[in-house]
Amino acid sequence: MHSKIAILGGDMRQVYIAKNLIKKGYSVCTYHLEEPVQDGIYTELHSFEDAFKKCQILICPIPLTKNTLPIEDLTILFDKKLTKDHVLIGGAIPKEISEILDEKKIVYYDLMKNEKVAILNAVATAEGSIAAAIQSSVINLHGSKCLVLGYGRCAKVLAGKLKGLNAIVTVASRTEAALAYANAVAGLETVHLSDLEKILPNFEFIFNTIPSLILDKNYLTLVRPDVVIIDIASAPGGIDYEYAVERGLNAKLCLGLPGKTAPKISADILEGEILEFID
Amino acid sequence: MHSKIAILGGDMRQVYIAKNLIKKGYSVCTYHLEEPVQDGIYTELHSFEDAFKKCQILICPIPLTKNTLPIEDLTILFDKKLTKDHVLIGGAIPKEISEILDEKKIVYYDLMKNEKVAILNAVATAEGSIAAAIQSSVINLHGSKCLVLGYGRCAKVLAGKLKGLNAIVTVASRTEAALAYANAVAGLETVHLSDLEKILPNFEFIFNTIPSLILDKNYLTLVRPDVVIIDIASAPGGIDYEYAVERGLNAKLCLGLPGKTAPKISADILEGEILEFID
Amino acid sequence: MHSKIAILGGDMRQVYIAKNLIKKGYSVCTYHLEEPVQDGIYTELHSFEDAFKKCQILICPIPLTKNTLPIEDLTILFDKKLTKDHVLIGGAIPKEISEILDEKKIVYYDLMKNEKVAILNAVATAEGSIAAAIQSSVINLHGSKCLVLGYGRCAKVLAGKLKGLNAIVTVASRTEAALAYANAVAGLETVHLSDLEKILPNFEFIFNTIPSLILDKNYLTLVRPDVVIIDIASAPGGIDYEYAVERGLNAKLCLGLPGKTAPKISADILEGEILEFID
Amino acid sequence: MHSKIAILGGDMRQVYIAKNLIKKGYSVCTYHLEEPVQDGIYTELHSFEDAFKKCQILICPIPLTKNTLPIEDLTILFDKKLTKDHVLIGGAIPKEISEILDEKKIVYYDLMKNEKVAILNAVATAEGSIAAAIQSSVINLHGSKCLVLGYGRCAKVLAGKLKGLNAIVTVASRTEAALAYANAVAGLETVHLSDLEKILPNFEFIFNTIPSLILDKNYLTLVRPDVVIIDIASAPGGIDYEYAVERGLNAKLCLGLPGKTAPKISADILEGEILEFID
Repeated sequence: MHSKIAILGGDMRQVYIAKNLIKKGYSVCTYHLEEPVQDGIYTELHSFEDAFKKCQILICPIPLTKNTLPIEDLTILFDKKLTKDHVLIGGAIPKEISEILDEKKIVYYDLMKNEKVAILNAVATAEGSIAAAIQSSVINLHGSKCLVLGYGRCAKVLAGKLKGLNAIVTVASRTEAALAYANAVAGLETVHLSDLEKILPNFEFIFNTIPSLILDKNYLTLVRPDVVIIDIASAPGGIDYEYAVERGLNAKLCLGLPGKTAPKISADILEGEILEFID
Repeated sequence: MHSKIAILGGDMRQVYIAKNLIKKGYSVCTYHLEEPVQDGIYTELHSFEDAFKKCQILICPIPLTKNTLPIEDLTILFDKKLTKDHVLIGGAIPKEISEILDEKKIVYYDLMKNEKVAILNAVATAEGSIAAAIQSSVINLHGSKCLVLGYGRCAKVLAGKLKGLNAIVTVASRTEAALAYANAVAGLETVHLSDLEKILPNFEFIFNTIPSLILDKNYLTLVRPDVVIIDIASAPGGIDYEYAVERGLNAKLCLGLPGKTAPKISADILEGEILEFID
Repeated sequence: MHSKIAILGGDMRQVYIAKNLIKKGYSVCTYHLEEPVQDGIYTELHSFEDAFKKCQILICPIPLTKNTLPIEDLTILFDKKLTKDHVLIGGAIPKEISEILDEKKIVYYDLMKNEKVAILNAVATAEGSIAAAIQSSVINLHGSKCLVLGYGRCAKVLAGKLKGLNAIVTVASRTEAALAYANAVAGLETVHLSDLEKILPNFEFIFNTIPSLILDKNYLTLVRPDVVIIDIASAPGGIDYEYAVERGLNAKLCLGLPGKTAPKISADILEGEILEFID
Repeated sequence: MHSKIAILGGDMRQVYIAKNLIKKGYSVCTYHLEEPVQDGIYTELHSFEDAFKKCQILICPIPLTKNTLPIEDLTILFDKKLTKDHVLIGGAIPKEISEILDEKKIVYYDLMKNEKVAILNAVATAEGSIAAAIQSSVINLHGSKCLVLGYGRCAKVLAGKLKGLNAIVTVASRTEAALAYANAVAGLETVHLSDLEKILPNFEFIFNTIPSLILDKNYLTLVRPDVVIIDIASAPGGIDYEYAVERGLNAKLCLGLPGKTAPKISADILEGEILEFID
């Protein structure tokens, strides 16, 4: 077994990573990509097992289960078939999997723990959210009242860009320091999450980045009937979708935006980090 | 004949104008709208002639021929059927039509000559262009090199918003004063249109707002093969589309964006101006 | 008489223009500059008359009377001593003077009528105003409520920069189109000048760019006692200073800012335009 | 001894804190303020010892030694005269002092460890730096090439504001994550501190926020002779000032900016935190 690289599953980012590595002369195998690579010399495989047998380096998707297998099946497969000669690279690796990898002494790299990858991921996510908001609404973002729930990486990028489009942006967070920062560095309006109730009816757009049920039934009764809600928290999102549908709200769970709106640039960044890691 | 209002043709903005006026108690007739109004009391007509007969005030679309009739037929129809008791409101009224209206002493109002309407139109167009650019590309606008051709109303709004998204924006224009202004007020890079050739290969996004053939075959040979071109100049746009297709370029003519991405807010503004005019 | 250049009066911009031209090998005479040039070969003259005798090209200050002579004396002097062999260059040339120059068929160039010069002048003025506001106040611009009176060149640049510093900026103007533009292009709050009264007490900073008495006694009774007023309208400014002093207001007339805060860059731009004109 | 409050030393912020507390009816003593308070009822004391005797709550300056006593003398004084009944409030409390306070079981509060205070401090510092840069230079910030050394709190606020003024801003830091963040969230150019050498000659303005000797002799030989250097790192700053003078560079150490450019707003924030602490 030589240093063959398997690229597995995922979205268009995996396709672009494959293209990049093939062009650079790496020995590449692919399995279950969203789209065939077409150009250059590479091997298309027909099973995960095949990939594990033929390749030492396994480039898995972000998140790890995307267009691969359900987490339970993946766990079993990895447990049975991976050896300490493998190197596994992927994003948002769940604890179940990382425990197995640790146990089997398999070297692995969670790309989403790389700050550089994660923040550039946030940029693509922010742009995708903005496009979704423009297309889901019958008003402009310009001059509209926007609420951003949370002030982590994605929210910071998104709130800044919304302000750059001349929306009137309020950030809601539980952390006083985050709010002070949002105001001082980014010039945003702020509200403590516990004071949200009073001002919730003001907003024409709500962007959720908090991965827990913030917009529950209680809160959803308070929003404007014509509000546009864009939810970019990882599945299952932060909204009571059942009730949102019942009330006829315009709420949209947007997952995997980087793979949709900026697969090439995302792949370029991932590829750089991957090569730095394996070389 | 009392002051009945006919709302004719056009895009979703006409539908929202109709809804607004019905809700306010005006006596409204509709014909050939993009979508039925559904709520409230109004009359659905079955021909233009019918509208001219039953209604004094005629609210035509922006631009005037949108979802109505070809300009030639419209000219004939207006000439035959309109009288000086009519009041005609619409946008981008062509000279052929305005001459007839003048001759027949019909009061009319071109909404696109209203600076307030026109500039808010530009906002909706800019947002629609940005959404189109995000969705047409495999990279981010963030950090990308963007060229904006022209520096009129739409270009000013668009260039400012692209910069607000952290794109690196260059404005190209024929007017020295416009370029000085773009730099001093908006902090943009600038280039004289006659010096464009040298730097054309730099750009990852090109937004055209100039309604004449700027990106001809000559220029299109110079752009990057993976450039994204968004053309928002009024039809037929400013690009040699035949050659663009031949070279396999990603060029998109985006017309009527306000009616697509912000019909409600656009309608609210139009309605305000219309009521100020007719009351 | 050969093409000797006289550089006369004015602020530090004239000094830098002199330095630039001397360095480029032009034959330069100076009179009444704010500071001696020191480096290079040039002639220091001892009267205007001397300058007119020895030099064909006369580079006068912006505005024309700055550090030269009162307008009446200048008019007399020019009338008596200039001939049609002279070329006069200066800024904001008053009508009294231009009429004489026309009459005597003297070629002249008003630099402030050059859009490029004027707008870059506006940039330096805006930065100077911002520095003055920061230093005159005991609060931050960040998050403060700022009013910009007028929306001409200087106001456009200034309002944009204040927003860039995260101030909350409202523009007041008489022109509906200017206000629509301020909102759509620059994302600013707007108010019609006639509705100013109601909101005047809100503002912590007021920047006046309108060269007529806007902030009269009536209006000055409405502002907060701790407001900071920065007046950059050309002398005598747009404020009832007598009453401002009486009420103990913090109002500051800031004239000639480009010559104070950015003389070198301003001189570079002026020099470029001057050389283009005389070569 | 009742809960009398002593306000001691420092800059204009202490004066405004005193004014605020007096107005709210607190029993206030002052000693060694930069300016007399004038309005309201309060007691002016004549020694620190007097203050310690008469007051339980001691509001010391930011930083602690500002306009009080050298650190050695302050240490001795505190050690001798403070008891566990005192409550000490101040900013940037040095370790020598905090150790004594701990030992004597005196309750104390370092205001600069309050994230909210610290970040709003950063805002005032950023505005002061900008005013200093505008006034120290003969060019505009607009369009100029600015380097910001460091990307902590002050740098983040400052870099954002410089960009808001349309400067072209590069951030230099040792941390990859900080640089990725500066680019993704704030849209800034970035450079690793170790690659600074190559691009150092490009900059027209350099703002240092790193409290260690970054711009040593080596680096200072590389900067443009007409560069403007604004140093806001705490004393003794981050520049080899001796060599800077030798080379005739325009370098300025700006300390205590919040007390100079925004004492009132700073005092308001401090007072809020102080009251929350003592009530």
